[in-house]
Amino acid sequence: MPTKETISNWFQDLQDAICRELEALDGQGTFREDAWQREGGGGGRSRVIEGRIIEKGGVNFSAVHGRLPEKIAQALGLPASDFFATGVSIVLHPVSPMVPIIHMNVRYFEVTGTEEDNRPKTWWFGGGIDLTPHYVVPEDARFFHQQMKAVCDRHDPAFYPEFKRWADDYFFLKHRSETRGIGGIFFDHLNDKRGLDREAAFAFVQDVGRAFAPTYVELARKNAALPFGEAEKTWQSIRRGRYVEFNLLWDKGTKFGLDTDGRTESILMSMPPMAEWFYNHRPLPGSREAETLQWLKKGIDWV
Amino acid sequence: MPTKETISNWFQDLQDAICRELEALDGQGTFREDAWQREGGGGGRSRVIEGRIIEKGGVNFSAVHGRLPEKIAQALGLPASDFFATGVSIVLHPVSPMVPIIHMNVRYFEVTGTEEDNRPKTWWFGGGIDLTPHYVVPEDARFFHQQMKAVCDRHDPAFYPEFKRWADDYFFLKHRSETRGIGGIFFDHLNDKRGLDREAAFAFVQDVGRAFAPTYVELARKNAALPFGEAEKTWQSIRRGRYVEFNLLWDKGTKFGLDTDGRTESILMSMPPMAEWFYNHRPLPGSREAETLQWLKKGIDWV
Repeated sequence: MPTKETISNWFQDLQDAICRELEALDGQGTFREDAWQREGGGGGRSRVIEGRIIEKGGVNFSAVHGRLPEKIAQALGLPASDFFATGVSIVLHPVSPMVPIIHMNVRYFEVTGTEEDNRPKTWWFGGGIDLTPHYVVPEDARFFHQQMKAVCDRHDPAFYPEFKRWADDYFFLKHRSETRGIGGIFFDHLNDKRGLDREAAFAFVQDVGRAFAPTYVELARKNAALPFGEAEKTWQSIRRGRYVEFNLLWDKGTKFGLDTDGRTESILMSMPPMAEWFYNHRPLPGSREAETLQWLKKGIDWV
Repeated sequence: MPTKETISNWFQDLQDAICRELEALDGQGTFREDAWQREGGGGGRSRVIEGRIIEKGGVNFSAVHGRLPEKIAQALGLPASDFFATGVSIVLHPVSPMVPIIHMNVRYFEVTGTEEDNRPKTWWFGGGIDLTPHYVVPEDARFFHQQMKAVCDRHDPAFYPEFKRWADDYFFLKHRSETRGIGGIFFDHLNDKRGLDREAAFAFVQDVGRAFAPTYVELARKNAALPFGEAEKTWQSIRRGRYVEFNLLWDKGTKFGLDTDGRTESILMSMPPMAEWFYNHRPLPGSREAETLQWLKKGIDWV
């Protein structure tokens, strides 16, 4: 059975591998790293790239441990406990509005002991990948969801339908009745309670992690050379504004990070380089921008 | 005793008066209005200006009523009730980084009846004015706080110290240990429970409302002609990013608005026209930007 050290080491290697693949894609930008330590225990490596294709990208690894904040213990229905959490988090904001924004997170969480003893009481894996095109291209959306489905199907045919729906529900801006993008997969609390031992759950999460770079590289290569102008850049800025709204208003990962006194600059690496807000912006009927808004709905079967 | 209609009408007139004064200040931009209705009852008039001095400014009036959402009734410790809420909300984002961002809110809230009867059970006034300079100028900060203190002192010498501290605590970005700006005054639940009848509380809130335009016009006139360049515009974009973070992560007004299915575009009129995020940005030691960060602390006695 993989230990928390095994899992954490694998996530660290995943960060390395993904950074190499993204540098190869970009062909110009290279990652710079900030290693940081958390006061309560553990730390991480935050890496940022500013390149030719990726305008602002963050690839974070962290492995933190310590006393679980009471607020979170309560929310999780756990007694006063020590915890261990490790994961990789990525958000990439491309230069071109024709290339989608992408987000991935893979994580492992463990309660390492309670006040009474020191045996692991509970553990789970969580994560997901979701895509936020500035302009939705159905062909690309289908490709992306096919990749996600293929990863899921290798482990359990029930995964994709469930995790796809979960992503639709999670990456949703309630205040605008609008999905963040075209979704993808989202899952949480994967453990023995749902019939997955640690080995099987880890194997699935590893496959999700491995699928990230090739999927994004394909989409970026296909679209990075497409022409665009001022109108497309403005639309990109508006969509980035929506990304900001989701992350600060609704994202539980952001909230968890800030509530556990995480490193603010690492958590907010997900912010776009720039965003714009126009009062009551409405794209022209029939425009590609208006068409994109039509696709930002739950329940679309892209596969 | 002023009725809810009297209060609401006065707020509507205040919106008119402030819009006239801001148009006179700007000398170019004029407000355009969207009147809107709320499905559950009531509505409002949202007004936006895009001008020569004010890059993006919103002056909202609303008077809404209906069933109090359960979530909010619980948070307020109230039984299932009908409510009435009216107010004016303003955020102004100036073109020049040398001119501060300003925010004002004045509001009245009343529980108009419970399931059992139809008598008003509880009411209160709330509001405040706070200033967010991109560059803190101590002389201007003193002037601003003196104006706020003068308004307070006309009603109760205890108001300014209490409401100034309240603003320091409220307009605070916990995740950055940084105040939003130089604060101002903030107050809530002003009513008979703290020895203010409706007439006295309304008179105070009216004075706050009247103080807004002359105070901001003075600060804008003084600073709008100062020179600035690319570096100052970039710093302004970064500070605007912090403004976005506060409003979406911490502001209770934004949360209340979204939770009561308020009009999203009116609530998010507070967003700046544009904001930027640089990973781990640190101003040069000794720069005016670094000096400004030093002033973004609670408990500074500006008067």
